[in-house]
Amino acid sequence: MERIAILGTGLLGTSAGLALRAAGFRGEIVGWNRNRAHAETAQKMGALDWIGADPIVTARESQVVLISVPIYATLDLMEQLSTVLGPEQLVTDVGSTKGQITEAADRLFNTPERAGFLPGHPMAGKERGGAELGDADLFRGAVWLFTDFPAWQRSDRATELARSWREWVVAMGARGIDLEPKRHDELVAWVSHLPQLMATALSALLQDRVGDAPELKDVGGRALREMTRLGASPFSMWRDIALTNTEAIDATLQSLEQHIAHIRENLRTPELREEFDRANKFRRTGSKASE
Amino acid sequence: MERIAILGTGLLGTSAGLALRAAGFRGEIVGWNRNRAHAETAQKMGALDWIGADPIVTARESQVVLISVPIYATLDLMEQLSTVLGPEQLVTDVGSTKGQITEAADRLFNTPERAGFLPGHPMAGKERGGAELGDADLFRGAVWLFTDFPAWQRSDRATELARSWREWVVAMGARGIDLEPKRHDELVAWVSHLPQLMATALSALLQDRVGDAPELKDVGGRALREMTRLGASPFSMWRDIALTNTEAIDATLQSLEQHIAHIRENLRTPELREEFDRANKFRRTGSKASE
Repeated sequence: MERIAILGTGLLGTSAGLALRAAGFRGEIVGWNRNRAHAETAQKMGALDWIGADPIVTARESQVVLISVPIYATLDLMEQLSTVLGPEQLVTDVGSTKGQITEAADRLFNTPERAGFLPGHPMAGKERGGAELGDADLFRGAVWLFTDFPAWQRSDRATELARSWREWVVAMGARGIDLEPKRHDELVAWVSHLPQLMATALSALLQDRVGDAPELKDVGGRALREMTRLGASPFSMWRDIALTNTEAIDATLQSLEQHIAHIRENLRTPELREEFDRANKFRRTGSKASE
Repeated sequence: MERIAILGTGLLGTSAGLALRAAGFRGEIVGWNRNRAHAETAQKMGALDWIGADPIVTARESQVVLISVPIYATLDLMEQLSTVLGPEQLVTDVGSTKGQITEAADRLFNTPERAGFLPGHPMAGKERGGAELGDADLFRGAVWLFTDFPAWQRSDRATELARSWREWVVAMGARGIDLEPKRHDELVAWVSHLPQLMATALSALLQDRVGDAPELKDVGGRALREMTRLGASPFSMWRDIALTNTEAIDATLQSLEQHIAHIRENLRTPELREEFDRANKFRRTGSKASE
């Protein structure tokens, strides 16, 4: 793998460049960003060797192409790249939902004449984006999800590149897990999209109720700060997620509404103890989740 | 202030002893705990000079009595102490709801013949309790709420002790804020009880959905860990809160249910952007809350 193209040098793209370097990647890393100034930031930080003028040309000249832009922009780039890349190349991505991207990968890539496409999703981020927050350690200890593993196994070169990319993912400190695309989208709805939208709901609600008295926010202390930290997440990051995983998210939110109503109706009954017991159990089992 | 009695040497009582010492308090600190072993832990950690055998006797021999037990136990101790203490003494507490405690203080204390009672509530804690987690820095940067300030101003000595206690609260690193009891209970329902019950609901729900696959909890990463950390809070700490602030908590949970339903119904509409904007605003304004 002599050259990797990173298309999109926001938080994830820039962090990937930095993490690859830190892990000892010796090939070239070339980046492209719609707003060139952000690519220049990434380059100054050491995430890129140079900046390409055009995403398609940049991708053409690389063995591996990492798409790290929002979901709909990813789908657009996939359309454009599918006809100009060949079977000696691999495209992968970092999109937060995988149903539509995996469907596009099956339709546009992974045939004997076309490039391989390995849908990926690192479970890492910050509540704000941007190249300047790029971090070589962002993926350390994180899970990096992959979907549709079997589909791209038909091309020897693409298979080899995909295996190599998975090894770099591990070298960056992450742990790869394979999931079916539908299972992926349902799972992240539970463990990622639901917590985000809860934090958004709580923050928006408190803005209405105590937003005019900033000193009262301090009353909540660390617990409130933690439960609302994700409230800072920008809509631009979440719009595409809400639009491409609506059904699964809707189901989790409905379950949560019912669960909260159940707790509300049992504030004075022994059932409240059972809710706490179940919640305690969730925190006690598992590895990282109980940190 | 020559001697302070700390009745209840759990996390808050033990931390108060340690914090008083760290802040330079030179008087005696005597502690009592229903389970004596926990008081011995607090003593070994340096939070107490010695351990009293009986809470009433221990309190009688002290100028300031800090009650740091759960709410109903606090109300019981208040009944017992009210008839044995005198106007040269001050009782204060750390209870998480203040309606019933302030009502009891007005009924049982704060007359010319009786001790003063200053209802207090430090907004500090950990998701687990216990003397062994005691921490001299627990109150640093925290808000320490007081209710019913005017009621105890009729006794010169109790007034003086209350002023002195407030100064020690500041010396321990906290910031005092006065609130009406009803306003206190409504406010903490929003900024403390609602976030706790949200974390309990999310943790309990996820236990049902992904609890059998611990490796999947890791997928959620830091965001999920933060949003469920309070899920570890024990029911024993929250039962009294739910029972003594039911109405206010019920109202906040109902608002949250409606807010989540609103978000759910607008996953594909521009209204979702407005929710994120409001949530972003909550995080941007205020001091600590935006950390």
